[in-house]
Amino acid sequence: MPVLVMKFGGTSVADLARIENAAKKIQSEVARGYDVIVIVSAMSGKTNELIGWVETTSKLYDAREYDAVVASGENVTAGLLALRLQVMGIPARSWQGWQVPINTTSAHGSARFVAIPRANIVQKFGEGFKVAVVAGFQGVSPEGRITTLGRGGSDTTAVAFAAAFDAERCDIYTDVDGVYTTDPRITDKARKLDRIAYEEMLELASLGAKVLQTRSVELAMRYKVRLRVLSSFEDTDENSGTLVCDEDEIMESKVVSGVAYSRDEAKMTLVKVEDRPGIAAAIFGPLADAGVNVDMIVQNISELDSPTDKRAHTDMTFSCPVNQTARAQKAMEDARAAGLFTYASLVVDTDVAKVSVVGIGMRSHAGVAAKMFASLAAENVNIKVIATSEIKISVLIDRKYMELAVQALHDAFDLEKA
Amino acid sequence: MPVLVMKFGGTSVADLARIENAAKKIQSEVARGYDVIVIVSAMSGKTNELIGWVETTSKLYDAREYDAVVASGENVTAGLLALRLQVMGIPARSWQGWQVPINTTSAHGSARFVAIPRANIVQKFGEGFKVAVVAGFQGVSPEGRITTLGRGGSDTTAVAFAAAFDAERCDIYTDVDGVYTTDPRITDKARKLDRIAYEEMLELASLGAKVLQTRSVELAMRYKVRLRVLSSFEDTDENSGTLVCDEDEIMESKVVSGVAYSRDEAKMTLVKVEDRPGIAAAIFGPLADAGVNVDMIVQNISELDSPTDKRAHTDMTFSCPVNQTARAQKAMEDARAAGLFTYASLVVDTDVAKVSVVGIGMRSHAGVAAKMFASLAAENVNIKVIATSEIKISVLIDRKYMELAVQALHDAFDLEKA
Repeated sequence: MPVLVMKFGGTSVADLARIENAAKKIQSEVARGYDVIVIVSAMSGKTNELIGWVETTSKLYDAREYDAVVASGENVTAGLLALRLQVMGIPARSWQGWQVPINTTSAHGSARFVAIPRANIVQKFGEGFKVAVVAGFQGVSPEGRITTLGRGGSDTTAVAFAAAFDAERCDIYTDVDGVYTTDPRITDKARKLDRIAYEEMLELASLGAKVLQTRSVELAMRYKVRLRVLSSFEDTDENSGTLVCDEDEIMESKVVSGVAYSRDEAKMTLVKVEDRPGIAAAIFGPLADAGVNVDMIVQNISELDSPTDKRAHTDMTFSCPVNQTARAQKAMEDARAAGLFTYASLVVDTDVAKVSVVGIGMRSHAGVAAKMFASLAAENVNIKVIATSEIKISVLIDRKYMELAVQALHDAFDLEKA
Repeated sequence: MPVLVMKFGGTSVADLARIENAAKKIQSEVARGYDVIVIVSAMSGKTNELIGWVETTSKLYDAREYDAVVASGENVTAGLLALRLQVMGIPARSWQGWQVPINTTSAHGSARFVAIPRANIVQKFGEGFKVAVVAGFQGVSPEGRITTLGRGGSDTTAVAFAAAFDAERCDIYTDVDGVYTTDPRITDKARKLDRIAYEEMLELASLGAKVLQTRSVELAMRYKVRLRVLSSFEDTDENSGTLVCDEDEIMESKVVSGVAYSRDEAKMTLVKVEDRPGIAAAIFGPLADAGVNVDMIVQNISELDSPTDKRAHTDMTFSCPVNQTARAQKAMEDARAAGLFTYASLVVDTDVAKVSVVGIGMRSHAGVAAKMFASLAAENVNIKVIATSEIKISVLIDRKYMELAVQALHDAFDLEKA
């Protein structure tokens, strides 16, 4: 029998009615002839409740006990969904991480998969079971302790099972009906994509489109798992949602696939930093140590400061999430006080947003950047920082122009049309 | 190191404050030099919530999935308590049933212990851990599925661990401060017992004193586990609560230790049942099949019905919980309709209660029954049914006299005085 992996997130199993709804979607796939492996999250809110209890009990908690507590929410939904499937006449069995077993590293709270042996579940399929309902987000360490995979771990579990079982596809049921050319709340011209390449999805995921967790897309790309995002609250069929797949599977060839944004950015500029070998490491080492997630980095060309001062200077600009600004500022001031480097001043701008265009077609098409900048200029949107990768171009702009910029770019690249 | 087992019920771990309170009691015992094994229930209300979800999902649920869901509440409290102990500087580790492992039969929902290997927990004690926090009420079947032990299973888990680890004592922390001569809500003369014999506790437990679950007392008696009942909401020391122990350990020798009662009883009489070999089996077989918990049984002497009818007849009276009356009635009518036996009429009295005196001293003292009947007669309480065992005498009386009867018997046997 071909294997299909289906994943239901917290909102899709939030109560008994939604669990029943999920069961019906599984029933359809069983009817199509699949052996189905279902990955479930905890009921929405439950994991946060458990985390709250742990953090209230112990600020510097033992991650082994954190995992033992926090993983319990998924066990409940796995059992309840298996029961609901049985009521519908479908032989189903629930699986906790240690029962499969889902072997992971011992890195509690952010464990990584080591192996997912197929034998136990395959044996149950052989006995006539049609569905294995697996508790997501969890595994078991070599020491026999329960581990968790960190936030978004249920998506990652689903992809790992799809890879381990050579599944035909991995369907991620969530509260949106697919991946859009941009956020439909910003422009009603946003269009659902039928297909998107792994690389594009990765850029979109890390740029703030919250549909799929980055690590699960990386894993899908590495193991060539065909990943489908679709809604658990609508009627769906084999063509619903968005398929995340290899670019070879994508016929249409738009240059730009989507426009992403990230609202809460901050821009920081170190003015007149001494320019010498190792200066970047001297700056970004302390930022990393302080847990600042630096995103874009731009270094202006250096220039001689004055005829009498022979040291070269440069301006170094970087962006980070706005709520990490204070931490970043302190790290820079401490580093200067410790004599790691000097700078004239630190300019902080907390009113910026990031807008990006993403498209695998950029690899072979020139002129995307020029078109992007021209359309922003036409709207009088000033660009503060630019960063590019092979398949995306990102700009920092004033936050108040963010929606305008997204709409302008969506129009400029004709994303409304399929 | 000597081992102590401590058990905290649902009300004793109902929230984070109470978990902290439990941790302090454990801390005291660690300070006294014990390696401590703690058995925890789920937060009060949680198990019922989970059971509700299972029963709503599936009326005829798969007990394997019921167990997988319902056992999760104890995992949460075990982890949280281990964390709280760590915060207090006490090396502690949580244990789920499959991790110990607590090997049980495959009788899901009412599994029985097969073995509790000591090796894993002993190894952790050897590594410097002082406390093992074990999720109560659960185990693992030979097939590697999670099992539960049925209601009261956490008490039973505690006693089983005390037996397996040769614990010095098994302390059951609950919301009462010990075992009383009778229910203090019925008479303020009720006195807390310092010690009580296993056999007496068994009679009290099964007679409606809800302090300890019957099966846990049976297990304690079989393995000579010294069991202590004490309050988790009061300051306690080594002499607190009530010790349930072998009668050899009890110095005081009251003839009667306590007065128990059960409010919701019903009395049923089959009038003029034919009296022949096998008639009792013919009556009580169908009752057992219908799930009726028959308690007392009294058969009057038989008499010839009339000179012309040579068949002998008798009246058969039994008691059962009042909420099983309808079921019992139907079972009898069906049995008569099926021709299993005949009777003239079925008299049902749903307004009765059971009152019992219990005491291991009865074995060697005559006159207890006479004194009991006399003191009830002095209060004009009519006795409807009498049943006796080696160490108890039970009577059914009108429910409205129940409190009066308990008070009278408590006085008659001088239970107020130590």
